[in-house]
Amino acid sequence: MGRVVQKYGGSSVADAESIKRVAKRIVATKQQGNDVVVVISAMGDTTDNLMDLALEVSPVPPPRELDMLLTAGERMSAALLAMAIADQGLHARSLTGSQAGIITTGTHGNARIIDITPGRITSALDLGDVVIVAGFQGVAQDTKDVTTLGRGASDTTAVALAASLGADHCEIYTDVDGVFTADPRIVPSARRIPRISYEEMLEMAACGAKILHLRCVEYARRENVKVHVRSSFSDKDGTWVEELEEGSQMEQAIISGVAHDRGEAKITIVGVPDRVGEAARIFEAVAATEINIDMIVQNVSAVETGRTDISFTLPKADGTAAIATLQALQAGVGFTDILYDDQIGKVSVVGVGMRSHPGVTAKFFSALAAAEVNIEMISTSEIRISVVVNQDDVDRAVVAAHTAFGLDSSEQAVVYAGTGR
Amino acid sequence: MGRVVQKYGGSSVADAESIKRVAKRIVATKQQGNDVVVVISAMGDTTDNLMDLALEVSPVPPPRELDMLLTAGERMSAALLAMAIADQGLHARSLTGSQAGIITTGTHGNARIIDITPGRITSALDLGDVVIVAGFQGVAQDTKDVTTLGRGASDTTAVALAASLGADHCEIYTDVDGVFTADPRIVPSARRIPRISYEEMLEMAACGAKILHLRCVEYARRENVKVHVRSSFSDKDGTWVEELEEGSQMEQAIISGVAHDRGEAKITIVGVPDRVGEAARIFEAVAATEINIDMIVQNVSAVETGRTDISFTLPKADGTAAIATLQALQAGVGFTDILYDDQIGKVSVVGVGMRSHPGVTAKFFSALAAAEVNIEMISTSEIRISVVVNQDDVDRAVVAAHTAFGLDSSEQAVVYAGTGR
Repeated sequence: MGRVVQKYGGSSVADAESIKRVAKRIVATKQQGNDVVVVISAMGDTTDNLMDLALEVSPVPPPRELDMLLTAGERMSAALLAMAIADQGLHARSLTGSQAGIITTGTHGNARIIDITPGRITSALDLGDVVIVAGFQGVAQDTKDVTTLGRGASDTTAVALAASLGADHCEIYTDVDGVFTADPRIVPSARRIPRISYEEMLEMAACGAKILHLRCVEYARRENVKVHVRSSFSDKDGTWVEELEEGSQMEQAIISGVAHDRGEAKITIVGVPDRVGEAARIFEAVAATEINIDMIVQNVSAVETGRTDISFTLPKADGTAAIATLQALQAGVGFTDILYDDQIGKVSVVGVGMRSHPGVTAKFFSALAAAEVNIEMISTSEIRISVVVNQDDVDRAVVAAHTAFGLDSSEQAVVYAGTGR
Repeated sequence: MGRVVQKYGGSSVADAESIKRVAKRIVATKQQGNDVVVVISAMGDTTDNLMDLALEVSPVPPPRELDMLLTAGERMSAALLAMAIADQGLHARSLTGSQAGIITTGTHGNARIIDITPGRITSALDLGDVVIVAGFQGVAQDTKDVTTLGRGASDTTAVALAASLGADHCEIYTDVDGVFTADPRIVPSARRIPRISYEEMLEMAACGAKILHLRCVEYARRENVKVHVRSSFSDKDGTWVEELEEGSQMEQAIISGVAHDRGEAKITIVGVPDRVGEAARIFEAVAATEINIDMIVQNVSAVETGRTDISFTLPKADGTAAIATLQALQAGVGFTDILYDDQIGKVSVVGVGMRSHPGVTAKFFSALAAAEVNIEMISTSEIRISVVVNQDDVDRAVVAAHTAFGLDSSEQAVVYAGTGR
């Protein structure tokens, strides 16, 4: 007798047939003697279609009303899934985020979970019911208004519920077999990673691996929830994200995986006066516009001018806003120019093994050099090395790194069409 | 400064353009200085489409889950309407039935409103917001599960809110100009009725006039809420349903309107032993299957056999269930046969004026005779006379009655396409 939380993405419940297929898997899990709580995304393109409808009615829909509208998507898929399970002979009960006790902040469109009061879930489990929770949503603690949790949030709902309910683990069903050593569309010889630590998964997610959202992994690490990322189209084991003890893995690879990200742009501020506090002034202004800056590089000042250049990367979507902010600052700070480049890509190698292997940086860079990839920016953490390169060089850089660190397998990865939320 | 509750049906919010048009009307009402609460149905065919989806997933969807699914429809239209109003510069706030404090019984699919706790509505009104309430739904007092209120229920939501909020009146927007003396598709010279009493409207609704649902009118009468039924496609006055003092209307017509209903069937139980309690036994059994019986006629027993025939009408949809129930009873009661006829129609003349005019029945029946319409069953109330006729004779009977009681006008009624909920 265990307790399992499962999460299925929108592509797993795109139509009535898919819903029945998912129901079958849930029924099987229940019949193995488990308490089962399921977190569900909206069917297929529902969220996008609702968003289109909103924009037809109002070019700038009020966030509170947008949340009211979008949460209908998960409500519908949750009810339909409960029906499909009932049709297979088990009792199932759908709950909205609010009914499930997902208490959040009041930031519509990007609320954070601050508490979970799962009384209705546990009552239903005690009755032997399968519980289906509408993902991606909650209720604001202060206003009691319905909120949504932002991108990737159904995964976070699932992990948060697993923590709150003391589940054995949390299964995230998606349309690929798990986390791979690199994107199989770029590296056909990429291998599934059977086990990965929270730290590594965090770095992978932060560096562009789309399979799990950063917030979900952060939540899982904080609450120590084991996450099993696997395909809803097969019964194969996927990737376990969990606490790994240092050196616990036989033949620990130096590098666990190679991640890449084409979603960022680079801004260079040219000729910043090299005075104390100028950099802080710039980044405080950018932070005030709620733009997430990723890598920052500051060159040594040129002695003759007393000026320096500062470069940083940020999501492409935030480019226009950041430039506007910087332009407003230009006269006050006295820098000479702002350069914007969105033809970049970031390639990262991630692995706890690099802690005990000092030669990783050298090996990575010489692999890039051999592949004739020019490095524009570098940033490192204890278990990650990231470089910014020209966008056209990303694929070549990923392949080179994957091979250099011995990650290639002979077995070809299976890739399915479609994407999860 | 007044307080108005408006209700818009699904055909009034079928697409983004219609939603914007309705928003404009709401904004105008607000700008005249009124507090405005709007009750909204699901967009166009949404409810039917969701029902189809449910049946794809499960042939017999659990009622609790069906309510969870269907309530998404009004939630979406409510949020979209709030966005459209915001886009026109006013603050609007959508609320689900549960958030609006619509407390109901736990009968999923056909719950009754038992209380209204409109705290969130009045708080929003106090802030100057327009409040949009998702119609057709509430929350069960005991289980806190989401419920739906059955057919025509958004009208009932509106009237119940108008009563609870002490609104000046309740406006029901539909796709026709109001209540007519007969269906204008059958009688082109039918006239809009400017004012009608609750009693008459109840009889009209019970006799097939589709414009307002019976439960809504019952609620309005009980709570003394003035209802203004009007078109969302024009600014013309519609029909006011309200308490009318006896004789308050100048030139009181004997008959206010002619209603008809093609939705019923007739069952005749042949050769029922004429013993005390047999009829009760039969109708108790039928009532136990939750079938609503309408007219009942029992003939005088034939002296030689000591047996009688009992006929009753019921909704066609309940025919199969009723026959099954009766067949199970046949041996016990000892009647000889069950006859079923769904080729019937009911024609009713309704009017408080008939209280003081004893010749109404004679006039009605002779008009039918002159039109060569054969009467199969008769039932009367204080302000209504209904006859069951052959379905093919319905139109002729309606026209004959309408003319006989002087209801024809020279001005042709305006009929719009589409139907409300």
